[in-house]
Amino acid sequence: MTGTASQPSHPAPGERGRITSRYPVDELRSFIETVLGRYDVPPADARITAHRMLEADIRGMAGHGIFRLPAYADRLAAGGYTIDADLRVTHETHSSALVDGGNGLGHVIVTRAAQIAVAKANQTGLAWVGVRRSNHAGAAGVYAAMALDHDLIGLYLAVGSANHLPPWGGVEPLLSTNPLAVAIPAGAEPPVVVDMATTVVSYGRIKVAAERGERIPEGWLVDAQGEPITDPTRSAEGFLVPIGEHKGSGLSMIIGMLAGVLNGAAFGRDVVDFTRDQHTPANTGQTIVMIRPDLFRPLDDFQAEMDHHVRQIRESAPLPGHSHVRVPGDQIPARRARAHERGIELAGQTAERLARLADELDLARHPFR
Amino acid sequence: MTGTASQPSHPAPGERGRITSRYPVDELRSFIETVLGRYDVPPADARITAHRMLEADIRGMAGHGIFRLPAYADRLAAGGYTIDADLRVTHETHSSALVDGGNGLGHVIVTRAAQIAVAKANQTGLAWVGVRRSNHAGAAGVYAAMALDHDLIGLYLAVGSANHLPPWGGVEPLLSTNPLAVAIPAGAEPPVVVDMATTVVSYGRIKVAAERGERIPEGWLVDAQGEPITDPTRSAEGFLVPIGEHKGSGLSMIIGMLAGVLNGAAFGRDVVDFTRDQHTPANTGQTIVMIRPDLFRPLDDFQAEMDHHVRQIRESAPLPGHSHVRVPGDQIPARRARAHERGIELAGQTAERLARLADELDLARHPFR
Repeated sequence: MTGTASQPSHPAPGERGRITSRYPVDELRSFIETVLGRYDVPPADARITAHRMLEADIRGMAGHGIFRLPAYADRLAAGGYTIDADLRVTHETHSSALVDGGNGLGHVIVTRAAQIAVAKANQTGLAWVGVRRSNHAGAAGVYAAMALDHDLIGLYLAVGSANHLPPWGGVEPLLSTNPLAVAIPAGAEPPVVVDMATTVVSYGRIKVAAERGERIPEGWLVDAQGEPITDPTRSAEGFLVPIGEHKGSGLSMIIGMLAGVLNGAAFGRDVVDFTRDQHTPANTGQTIVMIRPDLFRPLDDFQAEMDHHVRQIRESAPLPGHSHVRVPGDQIPARRARAHERGIELAGQTAERLARLADELDLARHPFR
Repeated sequence: MTGTASQPSHPAPGERGRITSRYPVDELRSFIETVLGRYDVPPADARITAHRMLEADIRGMAGHGIFRLPAYADRLAAGGYTIDADLRVTHETHSSALVDGGNGLGHVIVTRAAQIAVAKANQTGLAWVGVRRSNHAGAAGVYAAMALDHDLIGLYLAVGSANHLPPWGGVEPLLSTNPLAVAIPAGAEPPVVVDMATTVVSYGRIKVAAERGERIPEGWLVDAQGEPITDPTRSAEGFLVPIGEHKGSGLSMIIGMLAGVLNGAAFGRDVVDFTRDQHTPANTGQTIVMIRPDLFRPLDDFQAEMDHHVRQIRESAPLPGHSHVRVPGDQIPARRARAHERGIELAGQTAERLARLADELDLARHPFR
């Protein structure tokens, strides 16, 4: 069964890229599991990976969802992962753990780290779990949000999987988009979830603009003289721009030091470009922190106060042209409902790449025919 | 003894504002302690406050140092502080504490919170200390850096003391500059210290531009239509701009929720404008987190690796026109040495305001004659 086109079907050749279609969550899940299985990923690990990848799509972080499956497949094909990775906790205290991921699948490793954080935070109120020898794990917000099911606050920091950001004042890309995500539970209101890169946009977003033949605005990409690049096909000579100039650069640096250097994971020149080098273990670092609100005030009080503030922000006066003020994360419940009712929306280019992957693997049935 | 003018002395009337002079650290310390003493602040608390305030000046955060003394004095005069505040730890675990500051001096309360964090992190490796019923405590970086003397990593989050930032898409200033500071120890290299507001600039910087008759660049301040304001005298009708648009807004929001709502401190409409309302207890919230690196790797290893990366960044290729790439915090040791050798540099306006304060208090001797 193919997806339900949200625009006229039967696009002309070459036009499919601009069309989005919707695919049932269960079909995508089964597709991801089948693809990973072809590379001998154990079924339980394939299930976790599929779940986390689709969580990104469901939450609207399309650039970190099934979009990435062909890149993971390439890396699996090249032997860049240790499929039977021996994930170990190499050091722990009541409130901390260091997880050595053994170069396994990033989603599996960080899921396990988040589960350890949940257990420790349930017990002691606070958990700081570092991860080393991991890999690209998708959307930051997905892991921070794992805290929410347990009425915990979640924070997630990661070292990005390719360096496209020079430190402020420099032209050597020693930094990555190093993202930060924080998820804070409310009561009746949706949780507040911030999930952000420390650059104005991701490198992926520039590649997408190039693929679509669009120009990009000033402030996304600069050249080695610091001059703006607005032609995204010149991205190879360009560098990403940090948010808030030196502030975003500093933020990226300290996230890289906390999630990378502190955990014994890659940072700076040691970061392996995940998409260009499919062999060298990436030694990606991630950090997840969870906090039980009742360390500071009763959970009910905290949730009620969060509801109060979320409503105050949402109901505050909007800028002309805005219908209302958005609270970060407030669209996730509606997106989730829509994904489950109508399917996950994928760009035509993404569907085409997934169809090619299916053909390469000789899959008899897949959703992208 | 007066300060040593770094520009020609004897400025013409009205011109002093543009001239900076240097004042010995010990004289400024003694001046702050004397002023606070006149408002019946106990000597031990005055000493701590003076020390933290001057730490901000020494580190180059002039807007959060002795510059603020007249505002603190006004609030003391108005009875806005509880001078004999009963600072209490109202809840604690091995790795956490909630400090109720009893509306005392912010510097004293947060210093105590940081000391509690140091003790807990020394013991268990990890400490998360929340503060409520506090007040404006000056420069964020000063408290994060308190971790460094103990080979700990320090993080500090605070709710700003006046709301000038609307949530992204809105025009009601429900948020503040809510700063974030992180201090990470290295070995032979200076520690990495990031100390940043979540807005492009602080409100104070705009007031300074107005005082100097300067225009401000687009991107610092906007009006209720979202249009740029470049005339700083129009600041009363303007709003600060968050770094990275919706990203900085989200960051300010979650810092406010973690340091404010979670601790039972003010956030949103409950934030008291510290400079306009000198009576109402501000119930300022702050959070300080400390981490012992050996939870994740041996301290020596970590410090050596930090040195390696700090050097790699500093020695990386600079943008044309830059002599070298700066690592955040790397100028602090030189600034500290200069402050102790040659004194702390203050703008003429600041010195004039401090001289007026001295006159109001009938101080026989002070450095600003």
